Amino acid sequence: MKFEIKDRDAAGRVCKFTTKHGTITTPNLMPVVNPNKMLISPREMKKLFGTEIVITNSYVISKYEELKKKALQNGIHKLIDFDGPIMTDSGAFQTYVYGDVDIDPIEIVKFQRDIGSDIGTILDVFGTPDLTRKEAEGGVKETIKRAKMSASEKNDMLLACTVQGSIYPDLRMKCAKEISKIDADFYPIGGVVPLMENQRYADVVRCIISSKQGLDPSKPVHLFGAGHPLIFPLAVALGCDLFDSSAYAKYATDGRMIFPWGTEKIMNINEIPCCCPVCTKFTASELKKLEKSDLSLRLAEHNLHVSFTEMKKIRNAIAEGNLWEVVERRTSSNPYLLDALKVLRKTENKIWLEKFESVSKNKALFYTGNHTIHRPIIYRIHRRLLNRYEHLYNTTVVFPEGNKPYSTYYSRKIKEIFKKKNVNLVVRSHLGPVPIELDEMYPFAQSVFPKDIDIETQEESRKIFDEFLKEMKVIPWKESTTSPEPDVSEKKKTDMDLRRISAVSDMQFGKGASEALFNGQIEIVKSKKTGKIRNIYCDGKHILSMRASDGMFTLKIGGAHLLHKFFKYPMLRVVVEEDAVPFVREGKSVFAKFVKDCDPALIPLDECLIVNTKDTLLAVGRCLLNKTEMLSFDYGIAVKTRETNN
Amino acid sequence: MKFEIKDRDAAGRVCKFTTKHGTITTPNLMPVVNPNKMLISPREMKKLFGTEIVITNSYVISKYEELKKKALQNGIHKLIDFDGPIMTDSGAFQTYVYGDVDIDPIEIVKFQRDIGSDIGTILDVFGTPDLTRKEAEGGVKETIKRAKMSASEKNDMLLACTVQGSIYPDLRMKCAKEISKIDADFYPIGGVVPLMENQRYADVVRCIISSKQGLDPSKPVHLFGAGHPLIFPLAVALGCDLFDSSAYAKYATDGRMIFPWGTEKIMNINEIPCCCPVCTKFTASELKKLEKSDLSLRLAEHNLHVSFTEMKKIRNAIAEGNLWEVVERRTSSNPYLLDALKVLRKTENKIWLEKFESVSKNKALFYTGNHTIHRPIIYRIHRRLLNRYEHLYNTTVVFPEGNKPYSTYYSRKIKEIFKKKNVNLVVRSHLGPVPIELDEMYPFAQSVFPKDIDIETQEESRKIFDEFLKEMKVIPWKESTTSPEPDVSEKKKTDMDLRRISAVSDMQFGKGASEALFNGQIEIVKSKKTGKIRNIYCDGKHILSMRASDGMFTLKIGGAHLLHKFFKYPMLRVVVEEDAVPFVREGKSVFAKFVKDCDPALIPLDECLIVNTKDTLLAVGRCLLNKTEMLSFDYGIAVKTRETNN
Repeated sequence: MKFEIKDRDAAGRVCKFTTKHGTITTPNLMPVVNPNKMLISPREMKKLFGTEIVITNSYVISKYEELKKKALQNGIHKLIDFDGPIMTDSGAFQTYVYGDVDIDPIEIVKFQRDIGSDIGTILDVFGTPDLTRKEAEGGVKETIKRAKMSASEKNDMLLACTVQGSIYPDLRMKCAKEISKIDADFYPIGGVVPLMENQRYADVVRCIISSKQGLDPSKPVHLFGAGHPLIFPLAVALGCDLFDSSAYAKYATDGRMIFPWGTEKIMNINEIPCCCPVCTKFTASELKKLEKSDLSLRLAEHNLHVSFTEMKKIRNAIAEGNLWEVVERRTSSNPYLLDALKVLRKTENKIWLEKFESVSKNKALFYTGNHTIHRPIIYRIHRRLLNRYEHLYNTTVVFPEGNKPYSTYYSRKIKEIFKKKNVNLVVRSHLGPVPIELDEMYPFAQSVFPKDIDIETQEESRKIFDEFLKEMKVIPWKESTTSPEPDVSEKKKTDMDLRRISAVSDMQFGKGASEALFNGQIEIVKSKKTGKIRNIYCDGKHILSMRASDGMFTLKIGGAHLLHKFFKYPMLRVVVEEDAVPFVREGKSVFAKFVKDCDPALIPLDECLIVNTKDTLLAVGRCLLNKTEMLSFDYGIAVKTRETNN
Repeated sequence: MKFEIKDRDAAGRVCKFTTKHGTITTPNLMPVVNPNKMLISPREMKKLFGTEIVITNSYVISKYEELKKKALQNGIHKLIDFDGPIMTDSGAFQTYVYGDVDIDPIEIVKFQRDIGSDIGTILDVFGTPDLTRKEAEGGVKETIKRAKMSASEKNDMLLACTVQGSIYPDLRMKCAKEISKIDADFYPIGGVVPLMENQRYADVVRCIISSKQGLDPSKPVHLFGAGHPLIFPLAVALGCDLFDSSAYAKYATDGRMIFPWGTEKIMNINEIPCCCPVCTKFTASELKKLEKSDLSLRLAEHNLHVSFTEMKKIRNAIAEGNLWEVVERRTSSNPYLLDALKVLRKTENKIWLEKFESVSKNKALFYTGNHTIHRPIIYRIHRRLLNRYEHLYNTTVVFPEGNKPYSTYYSRKIKEIFKKKNVNLVVRSHLGPVPIELDEMYPFAQSVFPKDIDIETQEESRKIFDEFLKEMKVIPWKESTTSPEPDVSEKKKTDMDLRRISAVSDMQFGKGASEALFNGQIEIVKSKKTGKIRNIYCDGKHILSMRASDGMFTLKIGGAHLLHKFFKYPMLRVVVEEDAVPFVREGKSVFAKFVKDCDPALIPLDECLIVNTKDTLLAVGRCLLNKTEMLSFDYGIAVKTRETNN
């Protein structure tokens, strides 16, 4: 089993997942194949929809003598005629649907192994939402017991050990933690079907978060039984990697069409709001006239087209860095999804999500509604403003929201103010306070808000604004040049460039970073074309470059030395094992496997100091993973080395 | 020219529009065909995307001698090889783009007529947004002058007279009113391209509304130059019927792909979030490798697939009655669209929009965010609660939001209360106050809200709630059976069924309707299956049926007599011309053409009294149009006759 992160956004990730039967990309969808009755064959699915992996039910196969015989003789791949990875289910869901079904938890794992399943599932105890705590606890205990027993029988089959725990977050987390200790390869989150059926998406979100918090982050997570695209973006944003869909066939047989925003009966549709090959070929009335079996087939095709396109949309959003936008927009399709999104507003959830959130994104941050202000990246920027930003003076001039960048928009006024006074300058922006020298930093410059903002966002950003400026003398900009002289002790930094590089480095590297970096003869080189800061030298050494895209710093080895000296271990450090040191010294990237320790505050795309176990600075690089990930993953790059200390 | 409404939702409408070259359905999209360089031929468009109508530029044709000659000789349909309706533009846009272009305003209309254009456009004066009021006024004057002159040259060509007026709503409206007096057949709304280019969607909305308010509603309205699906749902909801797209080709040539939520460069796309035939056939990387001309063609196809699918989506939403949901969801794609949607919150705009809003819809009302509470239908229901609903007592027991229908959810408590007290019962719901006897009426029962509602909606519904219960003694439900006996004079209606039919009839037909209808021996017949009210008899006559779908009444002729007697002319009336009387008496529907007068308060799907010019009751029916529409349209049904007075 090989599983490595290739790209990321929110707590979502694009990964390469390697099995005996090839490598697939996640997030991905596994259509459920009924070995008794295939509406569309897996081979056809691969051709039509680019299906990479399918799931089928080993319990069903084991129940039918002929299927069982064939499967054991020729293997599952021959049986369903598919040469890609095949996951098998154990019948746990059938025990939930039909009550007591006679399945031996170990025999069914052995059977999956023997028929050559790529990913076989333990017979977990399905934890319905209506269980008492005690009942749920019993189910979790039994599930863990079976997982342990199954692990010793798996051989080269990847073992899927399901997280249960009903709707009790602490049980989910406990189960997840226990299962992470077992030799499992794949983590389904189970028991969510009854929640999905009742549109209890807020509970689904709570189940995912508590499970994810307990799970080893280096293995694929499968939201078992959630096959509707409505939930895909949110589930991926919370770290789910795989989905299975029996809905495509079940709904099709029932005359229902899946859309990203919901499900509709073909009989109620006048014109189909879809341009998939099926809906381009047939009009609604033509489809309605088809024979039932033919209609089912066409609708199944449509349903899979839509579902797989949703996966593409999500993977593309991760690559573009706008998964949160996709998530927030989707929630307007269903009032209960809105309730689900609101679960993420809890501070504890923001804190968890923030660890996965890259420092900046390729795309501007787009406001979609009153959820946007609660994104983890805005939570982070608010925290950093409160904890890392250093106010220079005890008087602040406040500007209203204006065109971006603010320092250009308000440049005349700023010059006027600077002639007379030493003050802080802050914009009361839609996303909270923005010190004017941070106006080019992501997401302050790279964000798009409507002119007229909702009251909840106003209220939320006002709170941060007030906290940011508490104990501060505040002057509205209009009065800033006429109001009495504020009591300023000494003139600190009136130079806007110096203010900018100080503020950005404190925000990016930590409080005091500016002190470490700019304690010498500073030379600032600007782009001739844009007039923006490009490179910074201290005592002749190149210490930083400023990126035009996000207004943040790329750390040069000169700057790395200064930060290494100033900040104590483990701050900003990624520690590599001795074996990897020579490679790093050559400029090779750091693989997760070789990371020994890491600053817990480092987040994806953060600049970092690569050191050996004796804290000798080896190189400077850019993190692709957070600490927990670096220490868990066996595959993939943890830090992209940029410059070595030679 | 024939134009008739077939279906409607919001201020949007699905119409049949007949030209010399056949009938098309609106809302629809006219791809722009460049007669010099066709990326995709109109014939191919018809085959691939079901294109029904195209637009091309007569000015361009007239400039190229060869094209001109061919067009005059063989006609425009031969020239571009298309047998459906063709609209031609006059070059007005070219005068805007290239400055002074030499076009004679009358010659170009004659030319369009002579080449056989189905819809020819006057040479209007393009009113850019930066004009002074005076400049804009001059342009409007000249446009109207040219429109008048053009009208006498059109012969059998349909004449498109463009509404201008820059961003001055009163000028737009004035221009629209003047143009409506001219013998024009088709109304483009012009001058919006610079607004679209700068994403000034709020201004676009203001232009549409002020134009629509001045225009004769019985002719097609074309939002000229708005070819991006992003704006389609909102523009249709405001009453635009046609769009033109040059964007599909322009963007394609520039390597850009159109999506319902925006535009993206193919070079920035990893995986295409689309399953149109092009995107199913090619992956993003395969597309990127194509020759430029081949790529342009493929992207143009994709762009048209997406744009036409959007039209299907909108027409289907109108049929399903959930266009507002589609509009509101779309706004989350673009912050400036949110600003545009907020324009509709102005009371004057709500009042205008409410006139088009059907009494009830096929689909439940779905909450999408803080816009929902501002929908015209909710504005109406709030007005009616304040103006039509009669409080029985001066004490009201208030229940919190609960499961629907409320009377079932709170039935035990209600029984308890009724034993002791004569009080009003009102639920403080997410969408405002709901008297418990109205709990089955649309949209109170037929609406889906999240559990956790946004603060703006809370605030908005609280305002209505307070106004509804002002000067009222209010008791929370928990205290309702323990609090001291309220000072009630007489026991009025403790019977829930009587309360329900009274309240619904007042809300639906007007204040006092219950007095008119239930002034006799009332018999209420319920469904044996559901226990819900089905039919109501007064003194043995069938007066009303209650619809299970929306909890509102179907008016029977017995009830019509009572209302006719009670309410003075023109209340609830549709007056038909003498010629039509025999047909109505036979039970035939009332065509708009024969409507002489109408109650201005009647709205689509309202029950109405069909009378002759002497106010004799002929029949009872259901309106399909509002007053202005009935008096304007030459085609289509105004009232569906249900039962005659024989």
